[in-house]
Amino acid sequence: MNDNLHQLRCFGCGARIAGADALPDFRCAVCGDLFEVEYPGWSQRRGPDRPNPGALKWLWRERKSSAEALDHSGVWRFRELLPILDSFGNAITLFEGNTPLYHLPRASKALGIDQLFAKHQGMNPTGSFKDTGMTSAMSVARERGFEWVACASTGNTSAAMAAYAARAGLRSLVLIPDGKIAWGKLSQAMDYGAITCQLKADFDGCLTLLTQIVKEAPIYLLNSVNPYRLEGQKTPAFEIAEAFDWNVPDHLIVPGGNLGNSSALGKGFRELHDLGLVARVPRISVIQAEGANPLVRSLAVTHGASLEPVEAHTRATAIRIGNPASWRKAARVIQDTGGWCLDVTEAEIAIAKAELGAEGLGCEPASAVTLAGLKKLRAQGVVASNETVVLVLTGHTLKDPQYTIDYHRNALLTEAEMAAATPAERASHAHLRKQPIVLEADESVVLHALEAQMAAAHASRIPVAPGIPV
Amino acid sequence: MNDNLHQLRCFGCGARIAGADALPDFRCAVCGDLFEVEYPGWSQRRGPDRPNPGALKWLWRERKSSAEALDHSGVWRFRELLPILDSFGNAITLFEGNTPLYHLPRASKALGIDQLFAKHQGMNPTGSFKDTGMTSAMSVARERGFEWVACASTGNTSAAMAAYAARAGLRSLVLIPDGKIAWGKLSQAMDYGAITCQLKADFDGCLTLLTQIVKEAPIYLLNSVNPYRLEGQKTPAFEIAEAFDWNVPDHLIVPGGNLGNSSALGKGFRELHDLGLVARVPRISVIQAEGANPLVRSLAVTHGASLEPVEAHTRATAIRIGNPASWRKAARVIQDTGGWCLDVTEAEIAIAKAELGAEGLGCEPASAVTLAGLKKLRAQGVVASNETVVLVLTGHTLKDPQYTIDYHRNALLTEAEMAAATPAERASHAHLRKQPIVLEADESVVLHALEAQMAAAHASRIPVAPGIPV
Repeated sequence: MNDNLHQLRCFGCGARIAGADALPDFRCAVCGDLFEVEYPGWSQRRGPDRPNPGALKWLWRERKSSAEALDHSGVWRFRELLPILDSFGNAITLFEGNTPLYHLPRASKALGIDQLFAKHQGMNPTGSFKDTGMTSAMSVARERGFEWVACASTGNTSAAMAAYAARAGLRSLVLIPDGKIAWGKLSQAMDYGAITCQLKADFDGCLTLLTQIVKEAPIYLLNSVNPYRLEGQKTPAFEIAEAFDWNVPDHLIVPGGNLGNSSALGKGFRELHDLGLVARVPRISVIQAEGANPLVRSLAVTHGASLEPVEAHTRATAIRIGNPASWRKAARVIQDTGGWCLDVTEAEIAIAKAELGAEGLGCEPASAVTLAGLKKLRAQGVVASNETVVLVLTGHTLKDPQYTIDYHRNALLTEAEMAAATPAERASHAHLRKQPIVLEADESVVLHALEAQMAAAHASRIPVAPGIPV
Repeated sequence: MNDNLHQLRCFGCGARIAGADALPDFRCAVCGDLFEVEYPGWSQRRGPDRPNPGALKWLWRERKSSAEALDHSGVWRFRELLPILDSFGNAITLFEGNTPLYHLPRASKALGIDQLFAKHQGMNPTGSFKDTGMTSAMSVARERGFEWVACASTGNTSAAMAAYAARAGLRSLVLIPDGKIAWGKLSQAMDYGAITCQLKADFDGCLTLLTQIVKEAPIYLLNSVNPYRLEGQKTPAFEIAEAFDWNVPDHLIVPGGNLGNSSALGKGFRELHDLGLVARVPRISVIQAEGANPLVRSLAVTHGASLEPVEAHTRATAIRIGNPASWRKAARVIQDTGGWCLDVTEAEIAIAKAELGAEGLGCEPASAVTLAGLKKLRAQGVVASNETVVLVLTGHTLKDPQYTIDYHRNALLTEAEMAAATPAERASHAHLRKQPIVLEADESVVLHALEAQMAAAHASRIPVAPGIPV
């Protein structure tokens, strides 16, 4: 590794080590906390390693039309800000990143916020934001000569790891907790050739065992304790800043599960600011599910000084995490940027997901906490109508089709959950739910069934996405 | 519509009509065949409407780094070659297209073909190639003032239509055949707010009824008989040509279901050639499933003069079509380009899908017929080792996770299907199948189970994706 360019700094005690000296479990030998990657050259304001803001912006823009394969990656296009490899020829890419930024005309209107956008990380190759972090960490694994990689995972992480391992020509191992997940969630890992082992243990048990294994065998650990994951995951911050012509939005709203994503995006914006590429950083808020809200509790009770694990319950499986690895980093990001941390109910999540669907944007349930959270923040009066807000959607709707089917067939939310919803939420639910109709195959019957719908549609025109300037 | 720029020509009798004069079912009033869009100005070699090749190539490249939203669409970036709208401000986009082109190092090596690539259309917003055609046809629907759109569909078409309708602010209706599909396939249509009606009829019955309905009510038909669908679906040909710096590959291999995709890609390359943007067109081959092979039979028996519908049986649901709408167009493309048309077995499809998975590329089963077909063509000696071949993958692996799970758990292929496979296929199957292992959560047990695997991995290094030039 090019340890002249990067080093690891412990987030707990501040100890600094060379990248190659990290223990296999990526925990600090002094205090046991997580590391983050830092680049000493950048702090020398006039040093030769310090990137030039204007030149970088120009270079990254030029790369969009480059014929070089690596430039087609939305992560490695920004490789000057993640110099973690000796040779970028070792980069493993599936052309991740470059994800779309969608305006949300209907939610904008409903919430009275003009500039409301969704950055859809579910449009990555394996269908989740994990790809952006896997490309960076897998490249490190290959450069360091590993032939095996592994993670404990119940879903998106295993899919991303298996795909990038296959691309790299490495073997991959996924440890799955016993009886806690559907096989459907593992279909991608199997598809990409991972060896999947279901253990008679819970998630923490799997991770503990895997930590022991990587200390004894030459297997590279790719859970989110690996700090190189966050280096790739910070690049959507660069894409967002670039999309707004380097005038960053006022507010970024991120789902909170294991909290690596909010940590990484916060790091990305902080580095842009430190390097003089942007004049300020956005407020970053983290939204959790009510039944999996350890960070909400931590900030409310101890101002982020400690975190009490909870037993997690939510249908939004991607954020069903009671003991998040990166909570300390995420708490720092929220506090440093002036963001909020709050939780939302199962009904609020489901209805927000249907509202995003009505904008033509599918996402996995966990992603919809962002819109649900924004609605609450707006109701509390803490988000102004003239703010530019970006919701970070983290996974593709096809990650969990059963949730969508259950919602529309009225099999998802309990009566108690619906009863606890506000009248406005219930009205939105009644409007958006599309229960399938079963009809005789007779033209007049179908036409008749449609007539009322068509009349109603005529009376209440849907706000259309604004015309696209050409 | 700007009927000075485009008109519709009947593929059967050659009758020409203005776009606005098409009947609601898009069938020729004279002979009942399908239309295709043509641009009269392009045939006037020095006419003002004829695009300039060099200027176009430069313009399309510049748009890759443009800040304009429409330029972020891989379809509308090429809008000079689909002038179907009066105003491109009416274009409805979810930033489709710009899909990745992946080198396939392992399949290349196994088949002895150096230049083997996959163009992954499953990386479109709703997870299939249908998005590229829906952006163009939905834009026409909006420009013509429709408030409702509809299709008969069992899967990918309904997902794409519902998403683009939502984006356009239009209402959408999906007719589904009775008892023939899983609700899972409809989850996306419901997610994006489509009204879904299951009729007591088969697919043809649904389409017949829908055809009647659109003649009586102001509903825009978005099945693939709509010729504007193919205008968007031709643009991946432009992306492929551009990726090879306008030296087109030798051979394009496309799955054959309803046959709109091969028809559209053929049209795209033909137009590039007619306009002088490329010096030749690639050979285009179409691969069908053995149990759903009406075009294979048509070409073998009548040289494409007529097509006998078949009752379709294949687990590759996206190409489970016995009476393809665009068969005449596809037959022409194959014959004009010197391509082949052949079918592959269920075992060949499943094993080819696992082989693509081992390259890190997930796809729905129908996409894997391309690799299975190439293996057959290569075995027959009709594809040379120095040819550049592009497989067109049409759908995302998450479109059908159950297929993947069943394959790896040995619940997909019957004994008879496996027995009919070649020894090489069976060996590949044995190597690729990743049946989940269930283990006690004990470190030594897990390590022990892995040891044999790790030793084998060491002995047989997987060929790695070639280093990326930077």
